[in-house]
Amino acid sequence: MKFICEKSMLQEAISNVQKAITGKSTMPVLQGILLDARNGEVTLIGSDIDLSIEAKITADVMEDGSVVLDSKLFGEIIRKLPNSAVEISSDENNSIKIVCQKSYATIIHMDSEDYPSLPDIIENMVFSISQKLLKNMMKGTIFAVAQDETRPILTGVLFEIKNKKLNLVALDGYRVAFRSEPVDNDSSINAVIPGKTLSEVSKILEETDEVVNITFTPNHILFNLGKTKVISRLLEGEFIKYSSIIPEEYNLKITAKRSELLNCIERASLMAKEGNTNLVKFNIEEDNMIITSNSQLGKAREEINIILQGEPLQIAFNSKYLIELLKIMDEEEIVMEFSSGVNPCVVRNKEKDNCTYMVLPVRIRATNN
Amino acid sequence: MKFICEKSMLQEAISNVQKAITGKSTMPVLQGILLDARNGEVTLIGSDIDLSIEAKITADVMEDGSVVLDSKLFGEIIRKLPNSAVEISSDENNSIKIVCQKSYATIIHMDSEDYPSLPDIIENMVFSISQKLLKNMMKGTIFAVAQDETRPILTGVLFEIKNKKLNLVALDGYRVAFRSEPVDNDSSINAVIPGKTLSEVSKILEETDEVVNITFTPNHILFNLGKTKVISRLLEGEFIKYSSIIPEEYNLKITAKRSELLNCIERASLMAKEGNTNLVKFNIEEDNMIITSNSQLGKAREEINIILQGEPLQIAFNSKYLIELLKIMDEEEIVMEFSSGVNPCVVRNKEKDNCTYMVLPVRIRATNN
Repeated sequence: MKFICEKSMLQEAISNVQKAITGKSTMPVLQGILLDARNGEVTLIGSDIDLSIEAKITADVMEDGSVVLDSKLFGEIIRKLPNSAVEISSDENNSIKIVCQKSYATIIHMDSEDYPSLPDIIENMVFSISQKLLKNMMKGTIFAVAQDETRPILTGVLFEIKNKKLNLVALDGYRVAFRSEPVDNDSSINAVIPGKTLSEVSKILEETDEVVNITFTPNHILFNLGKTKVISRLLEGEFIKYSSIIPEEYNLKITAKRSELLNCIERASLMAKEGNTNLVKFNIEEDNMIITSNSQLGKAREEINIILQGEPLQIAFNSKYLIELLKIMDEEEIVMEFSSGVNPCVVRNKEKDNCTYMVLPVRIRATNN
Repeated sequence: MKFICEKSMLQEAISNVQKAITGKSTMPVLQGILLDARNGEVTLIGSDIDLSIEAKITADVMEDGSVVLDSKLFGEIIRKLPNSAVEISSDENNSIKIVCQKSYATIIHMDSEDYPSLPDIIENMVFSISQKLLKNMMKGTIFAVAQDETRPILTGVLFEIKNKKLNLVALDGYRVAFRSEPVDNDSSINAVIPGKTLSEVSKILEETDEVVNITFTPNHILFNLGKTKVISRLLEGEFIKYSSIIPEEYNLKITAKRSELLNCIERASLMAKEGNTNLVKFNIEEDNMIITSNSQLGKAREEINIILQGEPLQIAFNSKYLIELLKIMDEEEIVMEFSSGVNPCVVRNKEKDNCTYMVLPVRIRATNN
C-alpha cells in the first residue's frame, strides 16, 4: 500500500470514523481504523459492530492495499503533523511509514483480513432529508431515551415514516419526545435506532441544507452523507404505541415565555436537589404562575406571567424533565396543556407544529399553601 | 442583616472567594462564604485556612450583620438570578431571604461567630507589580513545582526580592523554572508560597497593567488587588540554593524556532509513551537537529533546522519536561545551552533575558544510530 493525501482531509476522515470506535469491543482489531487504498481514493472505516462509519478521501494511490492502524496513535500522529501532503506506505515488519515534510513515523499495523466486513446494503429505497433538519430532530428526541436497560427497545429512538411525515420518537416511562417533519416519501417505515449510536450520528451531521440519504434494511439503517456513510444496527422489537399515550384533549392551557420559564424552574430546582426528587410545584393562576420548592436546604418561590385559558390548577413535576425539554426547544413562546393535577402535561411550540413533548406530573398531597 | 447590591458584582465576588473554598476542610463552616455587611459595603470571605480570599462590594446596607452561607448553593442561586438588584436580608429560623425581581429564595445560614478570623496583616511594607506581569511569571513557574510531598518545600514557588529584582523559582529535582523581573524595591525577601494556592491567585490576577500590592509577613503573603485581597500561608523551611544548580557555562548552544521544536518533540513523544519514560533523543548536528523516539508502538524521526555554536552532541530527555516549558515560553526563538550528554540543559528566550529553564537529561547508552 502506498498513497499520498492531504493531511487536513485525512484528519477529518479519521475524526469521523473514530466516532464509531468505542474501545469496548473485545476484538482488538476494532480498536483500529481500516484503511483501504485503491482507485484514487482511500476508504477509512471505524466500527464497534453496532455502529460503523466509513469515510472516503481522494488520494494519489501508487500501490493498492489495506491495513488496520491503532485508532488513537494513528489519529494523534496525523493530528500533530504540519498541514501538508502526507505519504503513507507499507514498510517492512508489518509496519507502515508515515512521512510528512521532515517528519517520519513508523507504526505497527494489524491485519486487514481480521477486520469484520460491514453489512452489504443496497441503496435503492432511499429517502432524503436536510442534514440540519435531521440533526435538529435527533437533538430534540435523543435526550428522552430510557437510560436503564429494563426495556431495551426504549433505549432507542423510533424512526417512523407515515403519511408523508418523518417522525422521531423517544420515551422513557416518564416523558415522551416527539418530533415530526414532512418528507416527500410514500413509504411506511418503522425502525428503532439505538440512542447511543444516534448521538454519534448527530455529531457527524452538519448544520447545512445539504441532504443525507437514508436507507433502511430489516436490521440496519444507513445514513449516506456523500463522503461519509454511517451504518447503525436497529433495535429488535416493537416500539410502544406512542400516539395512544399523548393526550389530545386538555382542560387548561397556558402560554409562557420559554427562557423565562426555564430560568424560574432552574432557580426553584436548586432547592429541590435533595433526595433526587427535584420536586417543583406549579400553582397556575389567572395571568400568573407561582413555582415553589421546599427542602431542608431552603425554600424558593418564583412568579412568572402567563396567559391562562381554563381553570386554575396545582400540579408538581420532577424539574429535571421540564428543564431538559425547555432547553432543547427553540421557539420563544411555548404552550403547556393540562387536564388535571395527575394527568400528563403536553408541551408544544406556540407557533410551529413540529414537536410534542409530554411529561408525567408527580402526585402530591393537596395542601393549602 | 439587610442589604441591596447588584447581582453581577455579587456574582463576581462570590466566584473570586470560592477559589479558596476547597471543600477539603473538616470545619463545616469553611464550606461557606462569610458575608459581612456594614458601612456601605459587603465583605465576602472564602477560606481553607491555607488560602483566604476576601472581596468587597459596594451595597446599600440597611442593617449591619454577618452570616455564613453554603458556598455552592448561594453561588448557584445568585448566578441564576436575572441581572438586577438583589436584596439579601435575615429571616426567621436562622435563614436569610434572597429577593430579586419576582424570585424569592430562603436558605439556612451558619453562624458567623464560628468562622475563623483571618490573619491580621498590616500593609506597611508593600511592593507593587503589574498584575499581568505577575500572572505571567506565576504561569511560567508553577508548572515546575514538585508534585510529591517528599520535600514539602519544593511543592511551593520561591518569591525572592534581591538586588531590585523579583525572582520566582520552582524546581522538582528534574528541572528548574526561573523567572525574573526588575522591581523598584530595595528590600530583601525570601518566601515560599504553596503551588496550589498560587495557582488560585494567578486565576484572580487580571491581564491588566494595574498593580497588585504585595505584603510579606513571617508566615503569610498578602496580595491586595483593591477590591480583592488574597492571603496565603507560606511554606516553612529553606528553599534550595537554585543559583548554584543552574550552570552558567556551556560548550554548545543552539537556536531554534520554539513552536517548530515543540511540534517535533510532541510528535516524537507519541511513540515514547510506553512505560512513562517519554524518552526522546536529540542528535544535534551542524544546522540540523534530529529528534528520534523508539518503542514497541513504532518509531519517529523528526528533523529541525537549528543554528549551532559548538560541537555536535547526542542527548536524551523526558519529553514531558521540554514540552511543558516550551508551551509556556512565549518568544518565537529560543536558545538551548548544553555542556555534555549528561549535564543539565538550559533553555532561554533568544531576546529577552527574563527566564531561565533547566532540564536534566536522561542518561542513555551511547549507540551508533
